[in-house]
Amino acid sequence: MNIKSIRFFLGHLLWIEAAFMLPALLISLHYREMETVCAFLYTMGLMAIFIPLLLLKTRGERKVYARDGLVIVSLSWIVLSIFGALPFVFSGCIPRFVDALFETISGFTTTGATVLTDVEALPRGVLYWRSFTHWLGGMGVLVFLLIIVPNGGRGKGDLLHVLRAESPGPVVGKLAPKLRQSARILYIIYFGLTVLEIILLCLGGMPVFDSLVHALGTAGTGGFSIKNASIGYYDSYYLQTVIAVFMVLFGVNFSVYYLLLLRQFRDVRKNEELRVYFAIIAIATLLITINILPLYGSVKDALHHSFFQVSSIITTTGYCTTDFNLWPEFSRILLVLLMVVGASAGSTGGGVKVARIVILFKALKNSVQKLIHPRAVRVVKLDGAILEDPVIRATSTYMTAYWLLMAAAVLLVSLDNLSLETTVSSVFACFNNIGPGLDLVGAVGNYSGFSDFSKIVLSLTMLLGRLEIFPMLMLFIPQTWKEK
Amino acid sequence: MNIKSIRFFLGHLLWIEAAFMLPALLISLHYREMETVCAFLYTMGLMAIFIPLLLLKTRGERKVYARDGLVIVSLSWIVLSIFGALPFVFSGCIPRFVDALFETISGFTTTGATVLTDVEALPRGVLYWRSFTHWLGGMGVLVFLLIIVPNGGRGKGDLLHVLRAESPGPVVGKLAPKLRQSARILYIIYFGLTVLEIILLCLGGMPVFDSLVHALGTAGTGGFSIKNASIGYYDSYYLQTVIAVFMVLFGVNFSVYYLLLLRQFRDVRKNEELRVYFAIIAIATLLITINILPLYGSVKDALHHSFFQVSSIITTTGYCTTDFNLWPEFSRILLVLLMVVGASAGSTGGGVKVARIVILFKALKNSVQKLIHPRAVRVVKLDGAILEDPVIRATSTYMTAYWLLMAAAVLLVSLDNLSLETTVSSVFACFNNIGPGLDLVGAVGNYSGFSDFSKIVLSLTMLLGRLEIFPMLMLFIPQTWKEK
Repeated sequence: MNIKSIRFFLGHLLWIEAAFMLPALLISLHYREMETVCAFLYTMGLMAIFIPLLLLKTRGERKVYARDGLVIVSLSWIVLSIFGALPFVFSGCIPRFVDALFETISGFTTTGATVLTDVEALPRGVLYWRSFTHWLGGMGVLVFLLIIVPNGGRGKGDLLHVLRAESPGPVVGKLAPKLRQSARILYIIYFGLTVLEIILLCLGGMPVFDSLVHALGTAGTGGFSIKNASIGYYDSYYLQTVIAVFMVLFGVNFSVYYLLLLRQFRDVRKNEELRVYFAIIAIATLLITINILPLYGSVKDALHHSFFQVSSIITTTGYCTTDFNLWPEFSRILLVLLMVVGASAGSTGGGVKVARIVILFKALKNSVQKLIHPRAVRVVKLDGAILEDPVIRATSTYMTAYWLLMAAAVLLVSLDNLSLETTVSSVFACFNNIGPGLDLVGAVGNYSGFSDFSKIVLSLTMLLGRLEIFPMLMLFIPQTWKEK
Repeated sequence: MNIKSIRFFLGHLLWIEAAFMLPALLISLHYREMETVCAFLYTMGLMAIFIPLLLLKTRGERKVYARDGLVIVSLSWIVLSIFGALPFVFSGCIPRFVDALFETISGFTTTGATVLTDVEALPRGVLYWRSFTHWLGGMGVLVFLLIIVPNGGRGKGDLLHVLRAESPGPVVGKLAPKLRQSARILYIIYFGLTVLEIILLCLGGMPVFDSLVHALGTAGTGGFSIKNASIGYYDSYYLQTVIAVFMVLFGVNFSVYYLLLLRQFRDVRKNEELRVYFAIIAIATLLITINILPLYGSVKDALHHSFFQVSSIITTTGYCTTDFNLWPEFSRILLVLLMVVGASAGSTGGGVKVARIVILFKALKNSVQKLIHPRAVRVVKLDGAILEDPVIRATSTYMTAYWLLMAAAVLLVSLDNLSLETTVSSVFACFNNIGPGLDLVGAVGNYSGFSDFSKIVLSLTMLLGRLEIFPMLMLFIPQTWKEK
């Protein structure tokens, strides 16, 4: 294991995090929340001690192997979360560290699961920081690091390993070459869309601070709200629809926007994941609308709430406008299935990703056709190009790991002896980075009822889900640490 | 599609089924259940009309392709179930045909899910037939057909397609060569073990008829009981333990017994699936014992009930001695996970099969090792031999189909708007051929609360589970029927 590289990344990561705490500090100052101001100052002071220690003698060319990239990414996320949790503890908002860590990991992984029972009591500075973790975690903090930190002699290929380990999806994006430039364009698109949403929300009459934090939560497909009733608090079709539409937009593969900017419309049209993603949203919205119609009376209301919840769950955001826990079984189960499907690869959303579902479905179709015509040679194609066997195999392997780890997590959490719905849906909601589940952790519930042990297990599942399993898995394999 | 071959198999199948109804007829006569006698006579009369029509001009050599084998198997099972359901209808025991078909498919697929609310009210002849469907379905009726029907000029390879489509598991068994002889030996072992269980149950004081039907249900890993309280009715540690042990034995790959008969102990020791199967049973029993200890007070009681339920669920039998629906969440969830794992390939049990879990786990381990040492060439081995890529790929494809179909079935059944536990666990219990699930379909519940639509969906999942998906899938693909 390349310790120098790890230190290099962790050191730079911490000063970026410290820099991103500045706006939170300023907001606290603005609202004269002195305890919060102190909390951020203490945290930044602690970071100032660690940063030089980590960066000591990290210059010089060093090869970063693929496995190093994986380890760097998972360690980075853990360290990021540990320091990110400190303001919650120091400000007294979440006095226990386990809870604060759960909340922070939930933030960075864009899960949005909360242990807070009354979020409206929190100071503004803390609320801003809490929502900002979504934004930073959504696009990836290491992607950001690659944009602004000189790579200290590291080659392009090495950084690619890190970027690849942090970016979601089964195939390496088309953005891999011209790495630094691509990452910059991604963040510009991300920033632009976020600002656009803030403006649209403000225009609809949402207070500026509320617009800011909810746009951060939408962009990262996170789901932390500053209201106990989530988006249901804003009783406005316009505001709720703006958020619903932006959730869908942030669940799209960002390379699509990149291609749109380059006016490569043909490539956009060829994107099968995009079509399937929109098709699933349309069909699920329609089915749930029909199913919940008796509850809401008017088609307009049913369609509105159905679309909001579908876009919130499939993009793994987790905002709610209504308590879908009270919906009929069909709608509840359809939402749980959407949790697993998740958003597009290369978006800020979680879940298995639509691209993986498409690949698995195509591989299955191919196998069935081979049963009918055993001698016919058929290839699996995606977006017009041949899908190579290693990609299909990697996708299958991912699913194996996904189900095995989900099962293990469900078993561990079940030791709390809460209801089966709570146990299973909490793991689904955390692993797929959604936030709300069913029953106790439903739209109006929270995660405060779990034991510390379960909170740690659920925090790990959030990291497993966000980093797509393997980087985290590497940390637990002795071989990773033994060999040079 | 080779219609002549289909008719050949269906015709012979029906007369075998008719012949197997004779003992049921005799039992009805013995107990002077005249309505039941008539019911069987009517059914056999109907069959006598169909058999000659089906067998008309089916002689002559004809090639049976792999896909024909799949279609023959699934059609056979459907026809077998339709005629097998008639005695229930004609005797008035289950007056509605949908219910009777559900019960019969549940029997042949060795699921053991029942729509009957008071099974003790049924006549003996019907009870015998109901349990006998487990026995015949467990080892496979087409396997039996191959033993006794002259193959009408068909070659060995052709019959292999049929046998392969009916036998559970990811790899073609070692018994493939010398097909007819192997099938005969399998059935002799099966018959021998069943007789042994009957004797041991009789020795423990269970009435002869009860011993017979429960041994049939154990052998097929079915789970139909003739008591409302299932095996809990027989308040005897000896009887319950005999059944528990035999459930485990019938969940073992039968080729292991074959090898034992041939005294090839080294091959038995090399069998990884066998070791994992026993390990899972041991670990699950231990964990549940600890978890339910507070409920039962004594270690002996807790261990006894834990072992019984674990062996019943992992072998997908479904007998119960206690209402495990009332157990703590950890035990309930562990049992649901065991439902998915299932028994060994080449046994009479259902589920995904331990062999597939082992293969997936090894493929996953291999992928992780490749992340650590990207250039090292490693192969996946099972039972000391290299596991070829196509087997791993087929296993992954199977899992994709498994999860997709389970999800679809859950959605369809959820339209009944029963509890989430009932909905999900009923599909798990039917697809994996177990029988009891949780909540309404728990150990003391039954499937009478579902709509006809859900009963049909659940019946299809039972067939999908028993025939391992692809044979059934073929029936629904237009291409299967279009081409010569």
